[in-house]
Amino acid sequence: MTATKSTNITWHEPLVTQADRDLRNGYKGVVLWFTGLPSSGKSTLAHQTEKKLFDRGCNAYVLDGDNIRHRLNRDLSFTPDDRAENIRRIGEVANLFSDAGIIVITAFISPYRADRAQARALNEPGRFFEVYCKCSLQTCEARDPKGLYRQARKGEITAFTGISAPYEEPENPELVVETDKQSLDECAAKILRFLEARDVIPACS
Amino acid sequence: MTATKSTNITWHEPLVTQADRDLRNGYKGVVLWFTGLPSSGKSTLAHQTEKKLFDRGCNAYVLDGDNIRHRLNRDLSFTPDDRAENIRRIGEVANLFSDAGIIVITAFISPYRADRAQARALNEPGRFFEVYCKCSLQTCEARDPKGLYRQARKGEITAFTGISAPYEEPENPELVVETDKQSLDECAAKILRFLEARDVIPACS
Repeated sequence: MTATKSTNITWHEPLVTQADRDLRNGYKGVVLWFTGLPSSGKSTLAHQTEKKLFDRGCNAYVLDGDNIRHRLNRDLSFTPDDRAENIRRIGEVANLFSDAGIIVITAFISPYRADRAQARALNEPGRFFEVYCKCSLQTCEARDPKGLYRQARKGEITAFTGISAPYEEPENPELVVETDKQSLDECAAKILRFLEARDVIPACS
Repeated sequence: MTATKSTNITWHEPLVTQADRDLRNGYKGVVLWFTGLPSSGKSTLAHQTEKKLFDRGCNAYVLDGDNIRHRLNRDLSFTPDDRAENIRRIGEVANLFSDAGIIVITAFISPYRADRAQARALNEPGRFFEVYCKCSLQTCEARDPKGLYRQARKGEITAFTGISAPYEEPENPELVVETDKQSLDECAAKILRFLEARDVIPACS
C-alpha cells in the first residue's frame, strides 16, 4: 500500500453499516472476482450469474470491460503499470459495491497473482471470492469471438495474455468453473450453490 | 470526452437493466451530487440522508472523502489536474452505482462547474441531481472542525477552496439546502421531499 496523497481528510463512521445492509437484504455484500484467459467466458458467465442472482431477489452487479475499461479506466492502456492500476481501481470499486450490500461480480483477465491478492486484501475475510474461469488456451483460441488471438498470433496486438503476456493461474481460488467442460447454465448454477454453501445467499427453499 | 486508450473491447447489453432494477426496488437509481465549500456540511448531510433513505427501505450509499480520497483516488493530489481527475472518477463510479439501482450520494467540494457538468453528462436526464449545500464562507470558517481554514489562512495549506482556490457556485442546481439556516434534519427532510416530488422514491403513505 502506498500512502495516500490526500491529506486534510478524516475518517467518519457511517450511520448505515455493511452489516445493517446485509441484515435487511437477507444476503451479503461480497466480491466475486472472476479471473481467466481472454475468451474464457468471464463476462458472459458474469452476466448470467448476475441475472440468476437478480431472479433470486439479490442485487448483483457486473463490473467488466464494458463499463470500466470504456469509462472509469479509459485513461489506462495495457502496459504493466496501467494493468496494475486498472486492477487496483477495480478492486477499490468492487469493495465499495460490497460495502453497499451488493454482490459485485468483476470480470477481468486480471492475470497477475499479486494484483488479485491486492484486490482481495481490501476486503474482510468471507467477503471476497476468487472464481477461476478455467478454460484451455486451445479452446479460448478456437472461440476467439473478437479475433483477438488471431491478431495476437500475427503480432498485431502485443502483450496479449496467454500468447505474448503471462497468465498466472490462481493457486487457491475459492471456486473453479471449467467453462470448456460445463455449460454456461451449469457454471452459473455452480456459483450459486457455492454462494449458498458460504451463507452469502439463502438456500433455495 | 477523450478517447479511450482501451482497444480490443466490445460492448455487451446487460441481461439486467437499470429499469429492471428500478421496477423491482420501487425507487430509482440516481446520483445526488452534493457540492459546496469545505465545512459546508456535505458529508454529514450525505450520511444523514443515506440513513433516512435506508430507513425508508431504499439502498442509498455515500461516496465521500472517507472512502474515495483515502482509497480509489489516493494517487491523486489537489493540483487542478488531479482535482479534475478526482471528480471524473467519482462521476464514473456514481454512474455505476445508479446503474446498479442505488441512490448514490456524492459529497465532494467539486468546485468547478465544468467538472460537475461532466459528471452530470454521464447520466440520463432525471438520473442526476445537483444539490448545492449552501453555507456562507463566514459560517464554514467559523465551524472549521478540522482547523483547515485556519491553516489555509496561515498559508500552511495552499489552493484551499474558498480561501486560495475558487469555488464556482452552481448556476442551476436541482436543489439548494442552506446548511447555515436549516438544521441537519430539516435539510435531509427537504432532500427526501425533493426525491418524492421527482418520483425517485415513493411518497410517504
